Amino acid sequence: MNSSSKKRIAILGSTGSIGTQALDVISSHPDSFEVEVLTAQNNVDMLIHQAIQYKPNAVVISNESHYARLKEALQHEDIKVYAGENALASVVQMDTIDLVLTALVGYAGLRPTIRAIESGKTIALANKETLVVAGELVTGLARQKGVNIYPIDSEHSAIFQCLVGEFHNKIEKIILTASGGPFRGKKRSEIQAMRKEQALKHPNWAMGAKITIDSASLMNKGLEVIEAKWLFGVKTSQVEVVVHPQSIIHSLVQFEDGSIKAQLGLPDMRLPIQFALTYPDRFPSAFPRFDFANYPTLTFEKPDTETFRNLALAYEALNKGGNMPCVLNAANEVAVAEFLKDRVGFLEMSDIVEQCLSKMDYIKNPSYEDYVSTDRITRLKAMELVK
Amino acid sequence: MNSSSKKRIAILGSTGSIGTQALDVISSHPDSFEVEVLTAQNNVDMLIHQAIQYKPNAVVISNESHYARLKEALQHEDIKVYAGENALASVVQMDTIDLVLTALVGYAGLRPTIRAIESGKTIALANKETLVVAGELVTGLARQKGVNIYPIDSEHSAIFQCLVGEFHNKIEKIILTASGGPFRGKKRSEIQAMRKEQALKHPNWAMGAKITIDSASLMNKGLEVIEAKWLFGVKTSQVEVVVHPQSIIHSLVQFEDGSIKAQLGLPDMRLPIQFALTYPDRFPSAFPRFDFANYPTLTFEKPDTETFRNLALAYEALNKGGNMPCVLNAANEVAVAEFLKDRVGFLEMSDIVEQCLSKMDYIKNPSYEDYVSTDRITRLKAMELVK
Repeated sequence: MNSSSKKRIAILGSTGSIGTQALDVISSHPDSFEVEVLTAQNNVDMLIHQAIQYKPNAVVISNESHYARLKEALQHEDIKVYAGENALASVVQMDTIDLVLTALVGYAGLRPTIRAIESGKTIALANKETLVVAGELVTGLARQKGVNIYPIDSEHSAIFQCLVGEFHNKIEKIILTASGGPFRGKKRSEIQAMRKEQALKHPNWAMGAKITIDSASLMNKGLEVIEAKWLFGVKTSQVEVVVHPQSIIHSLVQFEDGSIKAQLGLPDMRLPIQFALTYPDRFPSAFPRFDFANYPTLTFEKPDTETFRNLALAYEALNKGGNMPCVLNAANEVAVAEFLKDRVGFLEMSDIVEQCLSKMDYIKNPSYEDYVSTDRITRLKAMELVK
Repeated sequence: MNSSSKKRIAILGSTGSIGTQALDVISSHPDSFEVEVLTAQNNVDMLIHQAIQYKPNAVVISNESHYARLKEALQHEDIKVYAGENALASVVQMDTIDLVLTALVGYAGLRPTIRAIESGKTIALANKETLVVAGELVTGLARQKGVNIYPIDSEHSAIFQCLVGEFHNKIEKIILTASGGPFRGKKRSEIQAMRKEQALKHPNWAMGAKITIDSASLMNKGLEVIEAKWLFGVKTSQVEVVVHPQSIIHSLVQFEDGSIKAQLGLPDMRLPIQFALTYPDRFPSAFPRFDFANYPTLTFEKPDTETFRNLALAYEALNKGGNMPCVLNAANEVAVAEFLKDRVGFLEMSDIVEQCLSKMDYIKNPSYEDYVSTDRITRLKAMELVK
């Protein structure tokens, strides 16, 4: 903490859905937070706009081709300007950062998150792929460094909120809720022809493209199962998924006395973002409030893993362990990117993931370098399958 | 704590529904708990049986006419035997008691609970009427003595469980769930002729007669609103009631960031009893587990306060404050007792309560003696109304 006792925040991925909402939250509490670093992949225009508004100490554009434009636009500001993946991995280690909010999309979040943990920064984690790819390594490092990882994913924030004051009590079961996405209730024959236009229409949450496709295919829930295992230190068999189309109950924890706690609310990512920034306190908010009058019926059903095979594949990868969740993630990232380019069909995404899981070499205790090469080789294999 | 570090428990009302379930819980954890005192109102046979099984230090039978029988039956045991209301109020002060679980029914719980707090005993409170009658006095005394009151009522235990680790965070709203009782959805004309045989059939919970009638008339929820106000230090306007016929969500708390936490489970009083005894820890249990597969739909509706006027009357009494909740409770205790004797009709119970509230003198800041006289005079008035 600095002398003014404001929490100084680095937002990795500030121009995305989570990043912009994090800036909303920070703007509502100017006495409590200060924006120290902002980073973006490609959206240089929005990054310039944010930099001028929030006056961070430093900005990073990952795609180096935008550097000149960024540098020029901010030449009259007292803001350090960097570009490239290496700069991203360095900037998180600045002494003046208290908390790193990682809202990068996909595998790209892994390296800067590890660097931030190495330099003892508190992590607010919106980038679930970091834990999917290398959960054992990342959570082990965090334990070793005494670093707290606060989840931002609404489901994991729900569980974290339920565990507050109960970290000493044993978890019997974690129940992750899933909306079921836009194709819930449909069969394989109906979904086969679905294109990105349909898959991008999430019933409850407005989110980025990658996570929205993952929600439609239930891969998002699979990734969350893996994330939950590592965040909360439970066995795979202790993580269950229930489909809850209204997305009001964000997830639940069952303790070993049989008591279940749940966190509820309207689907609004600002709440888990704010809680990750203010924990252990809660700050007043003007977010719209939930009212049972508008939700007189909440429903729950088993996920259909025959139609949405990704969820079963995620459990399979997690049960195999080692580098298999990393394979799952890399194959899925390729599949989703190609689906968004209309180059593979909706159901083929699962085929690509399944084939990569069966074809890639198994590494029982992967090092960081093993994860990097697993990710790289899996992507090549997945691209071959696309062709 | 004693040297063996077992928690030594006094159970007031050990032969009732809560008392016997508390003994069940204690039996499951013989290394953690010791039964120090057992008391009953009238059920001397069960008290004898319990005394022989649990070998408490002392037993009390409130109805003195059973004293000789109790004394004789336990003459070969090393158990102190007492009788009468004064003995009940004294025995809770024994040095060897760590926690007093008060499961007395109605107003009778007030005096021994006050005595237990005065001697610094932790309270596990199943007797909501104690807080309904004299919430300000009792919680004020507990604060002054540094005594914790752990709720056993399933709704209040739910809220307490949700507040664990968050006592420093402001409560925005408490939402008490109500099953709606056996007459939910019925209109006044249908309920008018209902007798105790119908009213005693609670859809979800197996409980004592008084609380079951109170559940059917929604007075139980009214009493719980008052209890919640005092236990959790909120304004009356911060306590809401929602009817949830499945009784799975036991209650909810909304914090000032808008986040809602809930506690869920099958209706089973052993869980809140156990939590009150083990807090801040949770002990493993073999209680049946909740499964969404058996509850695919949870529903919520507004309480019908035109049909079930007791809930509105409870809010009215709480808003007036002073001795009015005490009046409400005393009038209701008489009304329920007379209903159980088929001497007043189901809807007339509310009439009796309403008339007592309008006829009794208002005392703004009642002393203990004022509560005692308010209770006594209200009962006389209520009995007059019965005739």
